[in-house]
Amino acid sequence: MSNAFDFAPLLPAGLPAPAVKWTGSPKYNFTGGNNDADELPLDGIISAADAVLRREGRTLATYGLESGPQGYRALRDFLVQKLKRDAGIVCTADEILVTSGSLQAIDLVNGVLLARGDTVIIEQECYQGSINRLTRMGVNVVGIPLDKDGMRMDALATALDDLKRCGVRAKYIYIIPTVQNPTGSILPEQRRTEMLRLAEAHGVPIFEDDCYADLIWDHKRPPALHAMSKSANVIHIGSFSKSVAPALRVGYIVAPWAILSRMLSIKFDAGSGALEQMVLAEYCASHFSAHIPELTRGLRNKLDTLMESLNEQFGTAAEFEEPKGGIFLWVKLPDNVDTLKLYQPALAAGVAINPGPEWSVNKPHSRSRMRLCFASPTHDEIRKGIAVLAEVCHREFGVPTRISNVKRG
Amino acid sequence: MSNAFDFAPLLPAGLPAPAVKWTGSPKYNFTGGNNDADELPLDGIISAADAVLRREGRTLATYGLESGPQGYRALRDFLVQKLKRDAGIVCTADEILVTSGSLQAIDLVNGVLLARGDTVIIEQECYQGSINRLTRMGVNVVGIPLDKDGMRMDALATALDDLKRCGVRAKYIYIIPTVQNPTGSILPEQRRTEMLRLAEAHGVPIFEDDCYADLIWDHKRPPALHAMSKSANVIHIGSFSKSVAPALRVGYIVAPWAILSRMLSIKFDAGSGALEQMVLAEYCASHFSAHIPELTRGLRNKLDTLMESLNEQFGTAAEFEEPKGGIFLWVKLPDNVDTLKLYQPALAAGVAINPGPEWSVNKPHSRSRMRLCFASPTHDEIRKGIAVLAEVCHREFGVPTRISNVKRG
Repeated sequence: MSNAFDFAPLLPAGLPAPAVKWTGSPKYNFTGGNNDADELPLDGIISAADAVLRREGRTLATYGLESGPQGYRALRDFLVQKLKRDAGIVCTADEILVTSGSLQAIDLVNGVLLARGDTVIIEQECYQGSINRLTRMGVNVVGIPLDKDGMRMDALATALDDLKRCGVRAKYIYIIPTVQNPTGSILPEQRRTEMLRLAEAHGVPIFEDDCYADLIWDHKRPPALHAMSKSANVIHIGSFSKSVAPALRVGYIVAPWAILSRMLSIKFDAGSGALEQMVLAEYCASHFSAHIPELTRGLRNKLDTLMESLNEQFGTAAEFEEPKGGIFLWVKLPDNVDTLKLYQPALAAGVAINPGPEWSVNKPHSRSRMRLCFASPTHDEIRKGIAVLAEVCHREFGVPTRISNVKRG
Repeated sequence: MSNAFDFAPLLPAGLPAPAVKWTGSPKYNFTGGNNDADELPLDGIISAADAVLRREGRTLATYGLESGPQGYRALRDFLVQKLKRDAGIVCTADEILVTSGSLQAIDLVNGVLLARGDTVIIEQECYQGSINRLTRMGVNVVGIPLDKDGMRMDALATALDDLKRCGVRAKYIYIIPTVQNPTGSILPEQRRTEMLRLAEAHGVPIFEDDCYADLIWDHKRPPALHAMSKSANVIHIGSFSKSVAPALRVGYIVAPWAILSRMLSIKFDAGSGALEQMVLAEYCASHFSAHIPELTRGLRNKLDTLMESLNEQFGTAAEFEEPKGGIFLWVKLPDNVDTLKLYQPALAAGVAINPGPEWSVNKPHSRSRMRLCFASPTHDEIRKGIAVLAEVCHREFGVPTRISNVKRG
């Protein structure tokens, strides 16, 4: 349109770049938190939808399903039981706020605790969505290094002491303790005790993100930090995206009413999606416990395929710790590989990866690392995709030096 | 807990008051945008859920349902057809962004256009959710008076001229032109032409909120402002909350890609609820057109009951224009009634109303007015609720002077 209105002069400063038009999914997609379509419990979801709609579908005519603004009551009741059984959390339905995915949960926690210029402590390698939110809010981020068991408590103690010396009280310590994103580690119980001690001593609350905690190979889930706290200083969030289906946008917050009531007062959306809450509650009440072992078995098989493919295609050029659960593998490539620069040529060849620096606040450390999500591609796609990735990486960076046992270069 | 952590010192300034615990719905609920549970097309929704899940339910394993970040493709395809047929809007699926209710649509429009200190023009009486958002953002609001046909164009022209004299370019003119909230008026086509002329002359875009536009008694819906614009200067939003079910949180934005791409780039939620989008698309494709006349017939009957009850219980003390559609009635009580002060005693007696000042930027004008939503209560509840309201109003303010034909006082 030649005389089209120009919105550009009206835009405020600081907006992100405009989105680019979506052009479809990559052929080999190792990004995002997509799940295994074959493991989706579709029959159970269909039956649940039918049953719950027949029984109480007319409540859809009312905002909040006659359960009030904290979310569908049956879903919160399920969560009370599930969190007790799986994570040791003792809470009531009144201490749970259902959200539109865990991303809204993060927004609400940030909304009631953070202002520009505040400081928070997070894991050095950490969920991109959380890092980006803090950056956009102008919050100072102190990253704590990880080892194979997650956040290092010696480093946390040092960081807290350093901040104290500067007169800074961090607003929270954000951690994904159980199946860490992106490393897949699980924080041992002893470290949890130590973390709670440090947090209490410094008067800093803990923001515990347990979105992946259902997906543990050996099902040995430690008690949540929320469960171990003696002073109600932990805000706990979770999600059904990884355990049932990511496109269902349902997450939740568990927190003392004193702070949950603050979050509820800034949840201006007239409620989260009701149909999704109803169907999840109905499905989970009778099927969740049986579904999880099936799902994790399938995911574990895919992880094996991914690790085999990496060994085969990259050899020693790809280093990784075996994750204890979840849907992704955190891979170290040789130092000369810049995964931000590997991203585009890989995508052009049909392979999508998550470059390490997008999952880290330590850019030099993460420069040659990448996150690979193995849940969504099929076994065959994993094998072929990793082969293509190795070719591209070889072409761009000279590593791996050998491709499929054929020496190159 | 005696040693409970105190979050209070960590809260940033300017948070709203904490939420109070929900204690159930009032007996006679004339608030909110709840709909008629009897008119909810439950059988159709159940069939749609079953059909769409069986056909393509496995896509729930992927964020965005393999449709990309703008929303489920089949829903956008339905909207392209519906908006052409019902509102004269010519657009493609690429110009539509599906949102989590129209409230998220409003947040996204505000997010890409507004900064603290900006000025916008809105209808003097207007949707509470929109007014509150502008207040929270620290935006200056210029309210344009309404008459029985909606926004007065003479007043809009004066306001635009006044702003121009002060060197202020408003960021948008927000309007609910078709079934205005709370008055239920419809802006005539001639005023739409004039409004577009004024908007173009002053370089101010129009933000058209058409959330209630499906619900018109005589089904004579004028073309949308978006459809009439010759310069693509209108951002149009809509919703399924009022036409299908409010608890389904699905709304949408129609806008040129130049500005829609900006909104998409600040939609950080990993997609809106997929199950709701799927079920709505499946249901609407074959049933929407037939459902609307049934729904509006039922709503119109309830409006008649409400108007009769008001005449019976309040007599001349309750004045109102008959709305041309929708789910609410905007009622003027005698000048001595302060509806903000009527609210609490009415609620204590089981009757919930929306006080006028919450739906207006002109507090003196709206002081003795209230909004009554008639969609959710049954006919019997409408009659009984209005009788109780009249009693409370009589007790608190001395009006109506006669209750149920029995002189009081």
